Amino acid sequence: MGHLEHLNEVFKAIDENQEEFVELLREAVEIRSVSADPARRPDCIKMCEWARDQLKSVGADTSLWDLGFEKPDLPLPPAVFGVYGRDKAKKTLLIYGHLDVQPAEKEDGWNTDPFKLIEIDGKLFGRGSTDDKGPVIAWIAVLKILKRLGIELPVNLKFVLEGMEESGSEGLEEGLKNNLDKISDVNFSCISDNYWLGKNKPCLTYGLRGICYYFVEISCARQDLHSGINGGSVPEAMNDLVWIMSQLVSVQGEILIPGIAELVAPLTKEEETLYDNIDFCMETFKGEMGSHGLLADNKQRLLMNRWRYPSLSLHGIEGAFSQPGAKTVIPAKVTGKFSLRIVPDLTPEATDKLVVNYLNALWAKRGSPNQIKITPCHGGKPWLADFRDANFSAGARAIERVFGTTPDFTREGGSIPITLTIQELTGSPVMLLPIGASDDMAHSQNEKLNRENFVKGMKVLAAYLFELGA
Amino acid sequence: MGHLEHLNEVFKAIDENQEEFVELLREAVEIRSVSADPARRPDCIKMCEWARDQLKSVGADTSLWDLGFEKPDLPLPPAVFGVYGRDKAKKTLLIYGHLDVQPAEKEDGWNTDPFKLIEIDGKLFGRGSTDDKGPVIAWIAVLKILKRLGIELPVNLKFVLEGMEESGSEGLEEGLKNNLDKISDVNFSCISDNYWLGKNKPCLTYGLRGICYYFVEISCARQDLHSGINGGSVPEAMNDLVWIMSQLVSVQGEILIPGIAELVAPLTKEEETLYDNIDFCMETFKGEMGSHGLLADNKQRLLMNRWRYPSLSLHGIEGAFSQPGAKTVIPAKVTGKFSLRIVPDLTPEATDKLVVNYLNALWAKRGSPNQIKITPCHGGKPWLADFRDANFSAGARAIERVFGTTPDFTREGGSIPITLTIQELTGSPVMLLPIGASDDMAHSQNEKLNRENFVKGMKVLAAYLFELGA
Repeated sequence: MGHLEHLNEVFKAIDENQEEFVELLREAVEIRSVSADPARRPDCIKMCEWARDQLKSVGADTSLWDLGFEKPDLPLPPAVFGVYGRDKAKKTLLIYGHLDVQPAEKEDGWNTDPFKLIEIDGKLFGRGSTDDKGPVIAWIAVLKILKRLGIELPVNLKFVLEGMEESGSEGLEEGLKNNLDKISDVNFSCISDNYWLGKNKPCLTYGLRGICYYFVEISCARQDLHSGINGGSVPEAMNDLVWIMSQLVSVQGEILIPGIAELVAPLTKEEETLYDNIDFCMETFKGEMGSHGLLADNKQRLLMNRWRYPSLSLHGIEGAFSQPGAKTVIPAKVTGKFSLRIVPDLTPEATDKLVVNYLNALWAKRGSPNQIKITPCHGGKPWLADFRDANFSAGARAIERVFGTTPDFTREGGSIPITLTIQELTGSPVMLLPIGASDDMAHSQNEKLNRENFVKGMKVLAAYLFELGA
Repeated sequence: MGHLEHLNEVFKAIDENQEEFVELLREAVEIRSVSADPARRPDCIKMCEWARDQLKSVGADTSLWDLGFEKPDLPLPPAVFGVYGRDKAKKTLLIYGHLDVQPAEKEDGWNTDPFKLIEIDGKLFGRGSTDDKGPVIAWIAVLKILKRLGIELPVNLKFVLEGMEESGSEGLEEGLKNNLDKISDVNFSCISDNYWLGKNKPCLTYGLRGICYYFVEISCARQDLHSGINGGSVPEAMNDLVWIMSQLVSVQGEILIPGIAELVAPLTKEEETLYDNIDFCMETFKGEMGSHGLLADNKQRLLMNRWRYPSLSLHGIEGAFSQPGAKTVIPAKVTGKFSLRIVPDLTPEATDKLVVNYLNALWAKRGSPNQIKITPCHGGKPWLADFRDANFSAGARAIERVFGTTPDFTREGGSIPITLTIQELTGSPVMLLPIGASDDMAHSQNEKLNRENFVKGMKVLAAYLFELGA
């Protein structure tokens, strides 16, 4: 197998040139591309141009997709589109990544300046180091090495890099739809924007839960009342609302809404065994959260609860007294907020129907004279890939080559909506290939990427390209 | 009865000189004595000095009690103490009132400048017109008239006027305790700082509910969690809290805490009949609140619910998501807030014990691994006077003379803590004698005092003095 020989050479070059790529990451971290901050919009645009230039320098054909405006006076950063190779005999891989970052201030509790990359004990600290500048640069590093070694790529590549992921990927779906012809030949997609389940063992991720969010508004009066003057005279909205919210999920975490459990895809024997070997420690997980208990008594069931079963969380109440202190108010209108994380085969439509029917039945049972308004919010569908497909097989073999171990096949409990968008628009399979560790602190203080993860990540990406093209 | 002849003369003079007292109210309203606003503290002090000067001008011996500081750099306004008459053969009446007002801005929705008294259709609009500058000036007007007519007062008067009532009467209780010798000879007290039950019929108020406020804090993790990543893995604090809050009061408003109902003083036949003739319309009350229902199906029971039975209100939750929008958070620590309005014979101590025991029993039943912390806040005791005592009889006869009708004897659902303080420190009965109407909008926009209530109020106060001294 010719690509194997190439790979050893590639790995060696990655090892030898790693400092160069750390410097590249340093350069990227210093561009403060905080998409949530309108004042940083020029930096977001600069970061996209920087990435475009990097792709260009390795030989990609690049363009910037104008995605319009966030507000009349606030342009969205352009999406960076790159084409590397146009050989019709080869398969085409779409690589997605993002160039914007979460806000960060030293005062938030960072030990170092968040926008200066600093290495301590093999950890590269800096905002965006792992989410998601590091993985994007790992791809660029692979291309630089291959170009330098004069090795031809076994697949064509198409890059889609955006600058608004941390702010809901605003404009990207429309941008992709407007450029559908440019991605119509994509055979596989790969996204490196998530994390290992733990700190030691790599994984490939084949599933994400969707979400359905609900508002339940109850009103009892025209305006807030005084609990002294009116306490005892009026049926209170808060009383109705906490009762309704108490009827949604049991203390054991079971969803009490009839019909939800029945729609969940049954657990097959084959799937069940998949959970046995996953590298995951209940106690470590509990300790990291600082929680007082867990909703399952074994690893398998706990991971299933997070990945392949729906869950219901109560987020809060709008309109009631939420400040410190002791205000004696009877809130006139309160809105309870909760959401379900949904999984195959639950659709947002079916979930909405079951939830709304149950809430209406609860309300009828309650017999309160107050008024209720139930608002289901737009839900995100769950994503589930076939982890035995050619894409995942290539990814798994790549990981084996670098780490000497087969990866865990994981799902995640949250959503990365662009995953499903890309899968639907390209009509081809997507794989999530994380290179960062679970303790990288994406979105938090002291975000970091281990140098080892960064370097081994480049090797995995390179190996994946050759496995995919084999 | 000599005083009757006097009264006709007094009433006539009040009618003829009313414009003078409206002007006095105008002057007082223009002093922006907003006690909640530190920037207005000089105005609060100025207002106290203004009242001192008014009392001095009618011949009272006055002093200002230094009440210390609210913060190191923010002095409390002094209490105004006035002594009018020192005849040991006469009874002594303590009159309490306050000179500070709630905040008010035109932009809040006032139709006119809140600090300019303006009369429209017999209504004197202006901040403080009814709460509580109007009633204080009504007392001063009575003294001016009596002085002018050369009529000797049948009782000695002691005035205690403060400038911090709207900010919790800070400093006053200590001020009174420091000057206990000056009020030790008080036989009766009168407070005009509440309102008629309706718009047409005067009342005398003999009861106020107390309050016990509770915080229930439940924590499930070290910090907020992500409902995608962790939903289904951890027993959620919000889930426990809404369940607990749902177990406190029924949809019909019954308090579900065992033992509370048993401690409420039983309703006597005599007391029950008191409610029959009270001028109160359920539909009007419901319409004013814009509520969708009421917790009683007859007037008597509704008034009792507000005045002589305890009620439990749920105020809100601190720590949970309370903003607009759809945040997918699992709050790590949430604090539910509720309070009971308590009545005789419930004491704050007994109520605390029953509530805490019940919450602990609920928590044991819940079987959640989370942590709970129950915090009872300092409660206010209920106040209940004997409406058949000499003070109330004098008040009732005074109202009969002016309005030609016996007043309703009412209680109120809220608290005026100074009432109980004065009763306890003087060791003598207190009466609440309101002169404003129920629609005066104290604490709200477009506060007003009807000219008729102002003028008739002066007459009632004058008549009350003579009835008390008879």
